[in-house]
Amino acid sequence: MRKGDGEEEEEQVVNPWEVSAGKGGIDYDKLVDQFGCQRLDAALVDRVARLTGRQPHCFLRRGLFFAHRDFNDILDLYEKGEKFYLYTGRGPSSEALHLGHLVPFMFTKYLQEAFKVPLVIQLTDDEKFYWKDLTVEETKRLARENAKDIIACGFDVEKTFIFSDFGYIGGAFYEKMARVAKCVTKNKAVGIFGFSSEDHLGKYSFPPVQAVPSFPSSFPHLFAGQDQLRCLIPCAIDQDPYFRMTRDVAPRIGYQKPSLIESRFFPALQGENTKMSASDANSAIYVTDSAKEIKTKVNKYAFSGGQDSIELHRQLGANLDVDVPIKYLNFFLEDDDELEHIKKEYKEGRMLTGEVKQRLIAVLSEMVARHQRARALVTEEMVDAFMAVRPLPNMFC
Amino acid sequence: MRKGDGEEEEEQVVNPWEVSAGKGGIDYDKLVDQFGCQRLDAALVDRVARLTGRQPHCFLRRGLFFAHRDFNDILDLYEKGEKFYLYTGRGPSSEALHLGHLVPFMFTKYLQEAFKVPLVIQLTDDEKFYWKDLTVEETKRLARENAKDIIACGFDVEKTFIFSDFGYIGGAFYEKMARVAKCVTKNKAVGIFGFSSEDHLGKYSFPPVQAVPSFPSSFPHLFAGQDQLRCLIPCAIDQDPYFRMTRDVAPRIGYQKPSLIESRFFPALQGENTKMSASDANSAIYVTDSAKEIKTKVNKYAFSGGQDSIELHRQLGANLDVDVPIKYLNFFLEDDDELEHIKKEYKEGRMLTGEVKQRLIAVLSEMVARHQRARALVTEEMVDAFMAVRPLPNMFC
Repeated sequence: MRKGDGEEEEEQVVNPWEVSAGKGGIDYDKLVDQFGCQRLDAALVDRVARLTGRQPHCFLRRGLFFAHRDFNDILDLYEKGEKFYLYTGRGPSSEALHLGHLVPFMFTKYLQEAFKVPLVIQLTDDEKFYWKDLTVEETKRLARENAKDIIACGFDVEKTFIFSDFGYIGGAFYEKMARVAKCVTKNKAVGIFGFSSEDHLGKYSFPPVQAVPSFPSSFPHLFAGQDQLRCLIPCAIDQDPYFRMTRDVAPRIGYQKPSLIESRFFPALQGENTKMSASDANSAIYVTDSAKEIKTKVNKYAFSGGQDSIELHRQLGANLDVDVPIKYLNFFLEDDDELEHIKKEYKEGRMLTGEVKQRLIAVLSEMVARHQRARALVTEEMVDAFMAVRPLPNMFC
Repeated sequence: MRKGDGEEEEEQVVNPWEVSAGKGGIDYDKLVDQFGCQRLDAALVDRVARLTGRQPHCFLRRGLFFAHRDFNDILDLYEKGEKFYLYTGRGPSSEALHLGHLVPFMFTKYLQEAFKVPLVIQLTDDEKFYWKDLTVEETKRLARENAKDIIACGFDVEKTFIFSDFGYIGGAFYEKMARVAKCVTKNKAVGIFGFSSEDHLGKYSFPPVQAVPSFPSSFPHLFAGQDQLRCLIPCAIDQDPYFRMTRDVAPRIGYQKPSLIESRFFPALQGENTKMSASDANSAIYVTDSAKEIKTKVNKYAFSGGQDSIELHRQLGANLDVDVPIKYLNFFLEDDDELEHIKKEYKEGRMLTGEVKQRLIAVLSEMVARHQRARALVTEEMVDAFMAVRPLPNMFC
């Protein structure tokens, strides 16, 4: 888009490799329309509450998972007593995960517990090898390190299969990759993913790799004879292009379309214009950060919607729409009443940015410390156990 | 090329999926120049004879394997007592092989025996799934059926590993695929292989699959710790584009470039304008043909360079350059003296087409019957044994 004087407005770009917001932050409504997915409305959240007999996860209650594709189909079959499975993943490009990385896993753990269903977690080490300046060996190492953080989120080893592409691809999985690849023309892939002529063949080869965990027969050790088992994919909305492609291909090769439930992006400390970046240590809180680091980062970098002086703040109150501490609390402060109270007090100028940040520092410190304690207990043997190619006899219990 | 009146001249096209000759048949000299490979001259054939202490295979003596890339390097290291391995393959698109399909395997068997080296044989069932209207299951079945014909050529199970892509891809092999894919841009692939925008991602994904058996560490059960082991690939020259790409990539990912030894095409019964076609039963002699079928096909379809009448033939003799029976005898009549005798007599009109065809029928019938007897003895257990992922402790003996 041409940048003119005065009225420059950058177009938002959201795909699996780039998230850049327009001037006013990510326009999620526009994204839903552009991608052609559905809004996740209050009625659907109520239905989840009713069917699972428990309060929906705060990510759901607060609209952080805000869009879906055929999630109602999944609820229909669950209501009829039928089964489905969950599929999520991560591209292991960095050693330490930041809080944004935990979001889909925290939510997936909730779904696994609420619906009592099996889960496959794909670590796309091949993708990161293709897109980053990393060796195969390094991406494999990172996949294993990341698996430890994922396991630390509390997944049930009796219902969870974690695999890395370099470790697992072959056999039935590779056959499915070939079947998907045969259904997608290069033109179509360029339309969906924006690959260029100077991009390498690895990029062109990859989309089927992320597609096929949506098909149960990619996991014969788990789902033998259950070719029509439905799949639900919790993910951030930037992954939607992969699954648009997958849903297009699925019926042509004899599978059900996967359903999706899609989240907003977790904002950088500096504000909501992008996702957090693993490459800028000051843009994010890492699961490895100390309480001191968390305190410093929040106090120093978390973008405030408060006013410039106490007097002005008391008078005008905070702008919650751009305030990062409030956005973070919206994700991680579980108590709805307290959150509402803070938002009200802050908005009306009775609470100061410093006080909100204090509360956020406490919430994040506790959460990160809990994660670190759990992570410290994850042994190599546990990683082996989660990643073992094995049947899961109790996966639907 | 524009087809004008009178002087139409079609350009020859040779790539892994299409071989169409210009007006005067395949111009192999032009091909060598175009592909940038080297001519396999008499001095090199003599060197093979000297180093192996045996008469070179008639395919070599008669220039049927006529081009190479760095074959002299392989002979250099063999002379120094160093090791290498052989790699060849087949795309399993049809049940029955024709004689042209046997040529690389007959030659590879000779190389294996003469140099006492291990051999990997790749059955590219994925390639055929991508390029043909076949299911995954059908290409897998064909791969196994074709393996039986290949085994019937007499390979040594103690030195030979046969694998199909759908059966073997994974682990170290998939890692190598990724490393190759990352080195080849889409533009480069289009330049080498001529893929179009409407071609599917499977085609774009495939070249690395055929490349990586050139790298010893794709076979950790065979070549662990021998990452610099050299590879020699016997194949028909239409496969050269794959290995041009492979040789370009090899040093960039830390491997030796594979060497090649490349053959002419085995002509169709109707003449030398194309390779034999597995889809036209009358264009080829199949390894499943009966003696009666061979007799009928040769008599009825084999293009003759003889004259239209006996009188004229006695007077002018045969044109050996276009005579298919002579071309076939050139491949399969092992006795050099007898072959020379027949060519001389036929060329000078003393021998008639019918007599030459008689001799050819006898040679082919015996060869096909021998193949059929060997094929009948190939059990499923033998296929399993050749395709088992296993070390080959005696592979260099």
